[in-house]
Amino acid sequence: MTQTTTTPQVAVIGLGSMGMGVAQSLVRAGITTRGLDINPATKQAFVDAGGYAAKDLSDAVAGCNIIILMLVNSQQCDAVLFGEQGMANQLPAGTIVVLCSTTSASYARDLNVRLSALDLTMIDAPVSGGAAKAMTGDMSIMASGAPEAFAQCQTVFDAISAKLYVVGDDVGAGESVKMVNQLLAGVHIAAAAEAMALGIKSGLDPEMVYEIICNSAGCSWMFENRVPHILKGDYSPNSMVDIFVKDLGIVLDAGHEMKFPLPIAASALQQFLTASAAGFGQEDDSAVIKAYPGVNLPQSKS
Amino acid sequence: MTQTTTTPQVAVIGLGSMGMGVAQSLVRAGITTRGLDINPATKQAFVDAGGYAAKDLSDAVAGCNIIILMLVNSQQCDAVLFGEQGMANQLPAGTIVVLCSTTSASYARDLNVRLSALDLTMIDAPVSGGAAKAMTGDMSIMASGAPEAFAQCQTVFDAISAKLYVVGDDVGAGESVKMVNQLLAGVHIAAAAEAMALGIKSGLDPEMVYEIICNSAGCSWMFENRVPHILKGDYSPNSMVDIFVKDLGIVLDAGHEMKFPLPIAASALQQFLTASAAGFGQEDDSAVIKAYPGVNLPQSKS
Repeated sequence: MTQTTTTPQVAVIGLGSMGMGVAQSLVRAGITTRGLDINPATKQAFVDAGGYAAKDLSDAVAGCNIIILMLVNSQQCDAVLFGEQGMANQLPAGTIVVLCSTTSASYARDLNVRLSALDLTMIDAPVSGGAAKAMTGDMSIMASGAPEAFAQCQTVFDAISAKLYVVGDDVGAGESVKMVNQLLAGVHIAAAAEAMALGIKSGLDPEMVYEIICNSAGCSWMFENRVPHILKGDYSPNSMVDIFVKDLGIVLDAGHEMKFPLPIAASALQQFLTASAAGFGQEDDSAVIKAYPGVNLPQSKS
Repeated sequence: MTQTTTTPQVAVIGLGSMGMGVAQSLVRAGITTRGLDINPATKQAFVDAGGYAAKDLSDAVAGCNIIILMLVNSQQCDAVLFGEQGMANQLPAGTIVVLCSTTSASYARDLNVRLSALDLTMIDAPVSGGAAKAMTGDMSIMASGAPEAFAQCQTVFDAISAKLYVVGDDVGAGESVKMVNQLLAGVHIAAAAEAMALGIKSGLDPEMVYEIICNSAGCSWMFENRVPHILKGDYSPNSMVDIFVKDLGIVLDAGHEMKFPLPIAASALQQFLTASAAGFGQEDDSAVIKAYPGVNLPQSKS
């Protein structure tokens, strides 16, 4: 709390499809940024985009007052912070750790307690919008944490997001909102697949069904966005089936922990698991339609 | 097929929330219309709106060349056509029967066979959009049947719908498209309830969750439309829980008949059934959130 607003110096840990966009958006905004990834090609891509690719965790956080964690899950976040080469002990008091990964709210709250014990400040700030919006700095962010911490991160959030929802002072609330969104997104993708499968099985023209539903009460953002992959028979991934295996898994674990039933999300997860078990885990999440057997799906024209 | 295009004389059988709007839209368009309902107050309302309320089925269809069935389900349609006072035998050859009720595609196909045997022509034309759009003649209609039949009904469809999707020549296709839409609509309402219940249970402000989701990838037409009822704690019905008990029942029966699995729709139906069993069947369908126990729902301000 004694730290005054200073020029941000940012480390982005994890340069995957979202992290790369975040790191490049920061560089474009003229913010000193150090990026770290385990993949050498990814690091080179960041260098090519004008960024600084750190050698290791120590190098990544050197001189930084804001650390953005853009990793796949809480296990990776824990390894980076508290593992062998863990950075948490190296960070100066007052450093702000921004958790952008999708995790459970309870993980975020627990992490906040552990970081606070080291005099570090945390914001949980899960993101939405996909790789394209990350690259242009147009993500949506659902974040929670102390107002002072947001004040210090303002130029950073301005650079990477089109819309920042500050949903509360208590760390964890951002992840709770993200879970609500992911529950809906996952159910809507699986429902879009189930509905298209039923329509095709009924002998309807899938293009016609798509056009009508997009203009009817049955539409969803995901239906409109994902069904074109099915129509083209093109399952090259934007976001993969296994991402929703993970995210709906987080949602259902949270429900279990709260002793709260989520039967529709549970049934959607089973469909993503069926698609993954059948070998489609690395395909676009619209490939969840392959969990429905005996459907004459449109074939790729290429 | 020998009948040439003639001035439409229409009977609307069933003046419920949708049928009343259809009948009044026809009257406004200057089309001769006879309406029938079992409820005397409903008949009087149609008279007050300038319509002709028929005494019975024979009176309703007298002189009519287009019969619109706007009844709750296939049982009612069957009773009206083939029951004790059944009208099917009274109708002159070439009369067009427009099935606007939501039924299974297989019921519609079977009905077409039975009506064809009496030299009657059928269109299946299930509607979408709710009572308000029915009243202003702005419904969406998903219809199938012979092009000649559509030609004869054109002024009628123009009067009652903003958008007519002719989805094929084969009767039943319209109902198939409607099923796809109802599957999505029902799942999306139940998923909206599940997601809001999780958010509230997680301690989030429901108004805030609503605003964020409406601007995120988790949004659906139904989420945007139905969640405001939850926020106001006002479950006075636009469309009731029991309507989706019926419509998802039709969807799942169709899946069963086709031997096709619809696990997400099945799980949504269980939530509507849970709400109905708990005594909320006549409330607005957003009351499906009451199937999730232990949630501190917003209370009505009135």
